[in-house]
Formats: sequence, C-alpha cells, structure tokens
Amino acid sequence: MKKINFYILLFVALLSVLGAGCINEQTEDVASNGESGENEVTGTETQIDTIYQFSVIDALLEGVYDGEITCGELKENGDFGLGTFDNLDGEMLELDGVIYQVKADGNVYEVQDTETSPFAAVTFFETDIQDSIKTEMNSQELAAFIEDMLPSQNLMYAVKVTGNFSYMKTRSVAAQEKPYPRLVDVTKDQSVFEFNDTEGTIVGYWMPEFVNGINVPGYHLHFITTDRTAGGHILDYTISSGTIEIDSCDSFYLELPENENYQSTGLSADNEADLEEAEN
Amino acid sequence: MKKINFYILLFVALLSVLGAGCINEQTEDVASNGESGENEVTGTETQIDTIYQFSVIDALLEGVYDGEITCGELKENGDFGLGTFDNLDGEMLELDGVIYQVKADGNVYEVQDTETSPFAAVTFFETDIQDSIKTEMNSQELAAFIEDMLPSQNLMYAVKVTGNFSYMKTRSVAAQEKPYPRLVDVTKDQSVFEFNDTEGTIVGYWMPEFVNGINVPGYHLHFITTDRTAGGHILDYTISSGTIEIDSCDSFYLELPENENYQSTGLSADNEADLEEAEN
Repeated sequence: MKKINFYILLFVALLSVLGAGCINEQTEDVASNGESGENEVTGTETQIDTIYQFSVIDALLEGVYDGEITCGELKENGDFGLGTFDNLDGEMLELDGVIYQVKADGNVYEVQDTETSPFAAVTFFETDIQDSIKTEMNSQELAAFIEDMLPSQNLMYAVKVTGNFSYMKTRSVAAQEKPYPRLVDVTKDQSVFEFNDTEGTIVGYWMPEFVNGINVPGYHLHFITTDRTAGGHILDYTISSGTIEIDSCDSFYLELPENENYQSTGLSADNEADLEEAEN
Repeated sequence: MKKINFYILLFVALLSVLGAGCINEQTEDVASNGESGENEVTGTETQIDTIYQFSVIDALLEGVYDGEITCGELKENGDFGLGTFDNLDGEMLELDGVIYQVKADGNVYEVQDTETSPFAAVTFFETDIQDSIKTEMNSQELAAFIEDMLPSQNLMYAVKVTGNFSYMKTRSVAAQEKPYPRLVDVTKDQSVFEFNDTEGTIVGYWMPEFVNGINVPGYHLHFITTDRTAGGHILDYTISSGTIEIDSCDSFYLELPENENYQSTGLSADNEADLEEAEN
C-alpha cells in the first residue's frame, strides 16, 4: 500500500495508452463508476486514492493565473475535480472524465485537451461511502451531514452530490489581463447565477485544516446541471433530495508550476482572510 | 530574500533540453551518487524531483508517534531525508540510501528496513545548484547564503551541506509511551549535544511558507558526523568550510497514515508557536 512503485505506474500507464485490454478491465470496475464510460484513461490502483493537484491556492490568491498544465494532462491524473483556466477564465469542473468550463457569461463549454490551467485538483473518483438525502437541507445542514459521514477529519475527501436542488447560487469569474489582480479583487466583480428547482451534481473536496496555503480547508465545491448548461463555483444552495458519494483519499500529489509567473510571485504568508473572501 | 535567479533556471532548463539524449545516463549518475552503493533501488525520473512525505507535521506536533511506514519503504522513495521513528525514538537522517537513528543517548544506529516511522520526508538527491563555503559563517549567515542560491521561494529544496564545523549543537528526543505527550512537551526534556571542530553533513529541506501544517516552512535540518558516530536535529552551528548542494524539487507526494492514532487525533488549526518551540 505504502509503496509508490513508479516502474509499475509507468508500465501500466504505457499499457493503458497502448490500449492493453486486460489492464483496463481490472481498473474499470473502480474507476468508471460514473454514468459516462467515456473516459479512456482509467486510474491505476495507486492513483485511485490520490488527489493530484497542480499549483497551490496561495498562488491563485496572489494572481498567478498563467495556465501551464493541459486539460489532457489533468485527465491522465483524474476523472473528477475542479480548478480554473488560463487567465482565470471561468470555473473548471471535471465529471466522469469530461472537463467543463463555466464562463462568466454563464455558459458551459466542453474544453479541448490543449487548454491549460493554473490551478486544479483531480482524482479518479471511487465511491467509498454513500448515503441518500430524503429531506430538504440547506448548505450548512448538508455540510454537517457529510462531515458526520467522514471516518476521520485528518484525511482528504472527494465529494459528489447528485440531486435536485430547490435553490442553487453559483459564481464565475472573467478572464483577466496582465498585470493580474489578486483573486480577492477579481471576485468583487464576479458573475453570480441563481437557479430554482434545478437538477445536477456538486463536485468538490473536503480537506483538513493542514492543507491551508496549498488548498482550501473544509469544503470547496463546484456545480453543474444535469443537462450541462449551467453551473459554477458554489456560493449557496438548498437540496431537496439526492445521493452523497464520498471518496476517501489518503495520498496527495502536488506538482508546482515551472512558469515565471508562479516562480516570481511573492506568496503571502497569511491568506486566511483573503481565502474566506474570495471563495465564499 | 526574494531574489530570483531565472538565468540559472533557464540554463538548467536549456541543459535539460539539450541533454535530452542522455537523460537516462544523467539520472543514473545522480541517483547513485552516494558512496554506499548499497541501495539497490534508484529513483525513476519522476521520483528524482519529488519529495515523498509520510504524514504531516501537525500530527507529529499533536503526539501522533505510532510508526507505520517502514524504513524499507522510505528507501524506495528516496535516498536522502529526515524524520523520526516509532514512539518518537530519536532523530532520523537518511544519507546516500542509509537510514541512521540518532537516539537520545547520543549514539547513532543503522536501522533495519523493518523499523517504522510516524513522520519522514525523503527524496532521491540530485545536485542542481552547488557552491562552496570559504569563510566561517554562523547558522544565520549560512541560511541567508543558501536562500540567495534558491531560484524561487515558491519551490521546495533538499539541502546538503558537507564540511567542517567549528561548532555544532544538536538534539534528540527519547522514545515515548502512550498516552503520547505533545511534541512541544517532549522537547522540554530533549537531550542536547554540542561538538567543537567536527566534520560531517547537514541533511534537510528548505520549504515555502505554504507547507505550514504539512511540513516545516523554511529550514528543517539534521546532522551526522562523517564517521557516523554523532548527530541529531540541528539547533545551532558555525561552519568553517564546506560544500553546499541544493536539489530543487517541483513535486511533492504526501501519504497520510492509516493508523488509528493518526485518524483519531484532533489536529490543531494553529501550530505556529508550537512548531517554533518544538523545532528550534
């Protein structure tokens, strides 16, 4: 379990790319529990419980918006997750191996594999814990309900909630130009969307306090409607009914950017107030 | 402090591109640059620039001392690094693929691969940047000298300093029994060792502020003498002459423990004061 055997990883990755049927079958059960089955790349056993993250939240807060990792590369590291795009051009959500871009105009676009991102966190989603929602709950109630399901507050969790929402409030941000403003200044002009009686999926993470600086402690959730026409970074919601699926993750792979924008930006030591303001 | 030498980065990047043909040879040399030759496992290209860490510093601060990862597994993920042992039994230092245990009795032991650790960070050390020390420097002066060598304050660095030390002050901690006390209480009774005119190697890391909670921001350094008879967690030193080698790392793999001790312990949200007291 504890061993990262990169030789095996590399070998399996190569085999997957070459389309070796037997390996795909083995991992398919775990990796493709979604509805789509569209994703060609399935995670290896090592990747299944790993959250792969590109860059750190402190960099995003300081205005490091230059895209570097491609969406194609993100898909190789997970079929589920969230992030943003080059120049902070909207909210990213990955579900069942498809990456969606919710732009500030409110529309949802499927992106090319060549599109780049300055910050994203993905994983191969595998349901470890599941429950259903039968009574209406607001966002605080559902947050507490999910936290009660977590076996430990010291692990990381991918959270998927599929259901009917009597209310959903999201936001998206517009593409920025250099010199990039800080995230807290960008979100002052964010586009806010409100929906009543919508159906869709919440995609995101619950992370422990110790990730502060690297990712968002607690919840970080994006939303997309079932018909893939609307969504964004979640600000508030009320759920009427649905299913909660939780993927418990005990490893985390962080890749740091190589671009000049990242390497030369001073990352603030204390971002808690900014994070609170930019994300909520 | 904020000085960034992009020319070095660019040069290294260009060298990598130009030397693409002999990448395998390069990494081979680099992975087995130790004197030991005992370590059969050498890092793959992916591992070379990755720091592999088991557990988080916040857990160690709260008294999560149950060993889980074996030293054998650590060696598969790096030939250089530091940490501690099951029950907090001394300071761990890995150099050239050999793991040493500096116990509170002041003696140094080579450990079995079956010994376990509750917290460790290792990498396959590859020298990216190098310089020599010709004039005597105290620990603050050398710290500043090394920081000037770093291409960016937003990456992670493994730091190796081999030389002659006119003064070296280290500490080690004694094995603990359950219920484990917090680290800050254990270090009140730490064993402190002082040496004059000793020769040896500093092994450790410089990490950015955003790792706070996961690892130690700034420097975390251990020491071992050339004859492998003494060492520990560094508290202070003065270096007369020596060589600085820096390994620039742009990826970080974090593995979280599965044991009950880790999963059930409340991890404090704000550890900065404790970290300062326990580590210095």
